[in-house]
Amino acid sequence: MTEMEKEGARGGTTASPTLIYAHEHPESDRRREGGFTLWFTGLSGSGKSTIAHLVGPELDRRGHVVEYLDGDTVRTHLSKGLGFSKADRDTNIERIGWVASRLTRQGAAVIAAAISPYEETRRAARATVEEWGGFVEVYVRASMDECARRDVKGLYAKAFAGEIKGFTGVDDPYEEPVAPELVVDTEQHSPEESARLIVETLEELGLVVSAVTA
Amino acid sequence: MTEMEKEGARGGTTASPTLIYAHEHPESDRRREGGFTLWFTGLSGSGKSTIAHLVGPELDRRGHVVEYLDGDTVRTHLSKGLGFSKADRDTNIERIGWVASRLTRQGAAVIAAAISPYEETRRAARATVEEWGGFVEVYVRASMDECARRDVKGLYAKAFAGEIKGFTGVDDPYEEPVAPELVVDTEQHSPEESARLIVETLEELGLVVSAVTA
Repeated sequence: MTEMEKEGARGGTTASPTLIYAHEHPESDRRREGGFTLWFTGLSGSGKSTIAHLVGPELDRRGHVVEYLDGDTVRTHLSKGLGFSKADRDTNIERIGWVASRLTRQGAAVIAAAISPYEETRRAARATVEEWGGFVEVYVRASMDECARRDVKGLYAKAFAGEIKGFTGVDDPYEEPVAPELVVDTEQHSPEESARLIVETLEELGLVVSAVTA
Repeated sequence: MTEMEKEGARGGTTASPTLIYAHEHPESDRRREGGFTLWFTGLSGSGKSTIAHLVGPELDRRGHVVEYLDGDTVRTHLSKGLGFSKADRDTNIERIGWVASRLTRQGAAVIAAAISPYEETRRAARATVEEWGGFVEVYVRASMDECARRDVKGLYAKAFAGEIKGFTGVDDPYEEPVAPELVVDTEQHSPEESARLIVETLEELGLVVSAVTA
């Protein structure tokens, strides 16, 4: 660093090359090994959160430090004020993807569980995370009719009544994943069975050790 | 879990205790040791980002996985769309505090560098982070006159011209920290000297090992 640059940063009247340099974010490649993001996508009521909170303790038991980025957590801590337009949904998912990537870099087992209805946005999240660790997309599949029948939050009833606009699967699109690492059909499998399939997939991918060796 | 709960989660017509249970977030206390957040506060132009990017590589060299949550990063990835009202500033800082706490839990060395003008909001961020690791508040001090003289981003000129409203230090408040771990006066110290003081403080607090043993 030159004297002039130091002067600039200390308060000289010249424009400050020091600050411009600092803003380039010369980030280290350092990371902790073993981080990955398990990305659930699916309709509201398909079972994403339920399964996430069955998988999480299994990963914890095997020594991973688990972080949940599910819809409720994210809407509270990251995305309060965002709505459900395409732009706002995309911003929400980009934000989750970015935070997931930072946590993955730190070696976390991140479990993201948001509807994330758009393929392109999910693909961008994958690209961001894969700079730092694994990305495993799980499509938690249930038909809209079945999700509406469960209607665990009473939201489908409101969507059908027109009280909620732009509800995914009712009057807003859901793009099915093109190439997810795993599909779990929650009309065929219980949450416990789905969780087991997911943990087995993570074992096969070498992201978690099997329960026997853990 | 009872059979009824399983049925509920699989799509029974009863309300689903399984989902309610899942949403309680039975989070593990597991964490990686050694995480902390270094929280810079100070006026625009006081030197927060410059110093952050001098401290970061020092921490990296000592084996920490450093995460920068500075103003630019955060406004891009977490808080796009937020303005500069008290409510929006608070939301921005709460968000940084929450992400910092998750990263601290994962063992990261987080360097947050936002103006964070309100004492109460900084205190809340501290409380959130301290659940998971150390929190070190550094007041990067320079007078408004000096920051305006530097005006590295040309923002003070715009604020004085009335082109930017609600600019901290000009027509928006900055509450000086009541009990920061460290004050660095950037009218007295160069960025390099300030960075050295900060690393020494982190060593004294036992959060980083000294360069000799690293």
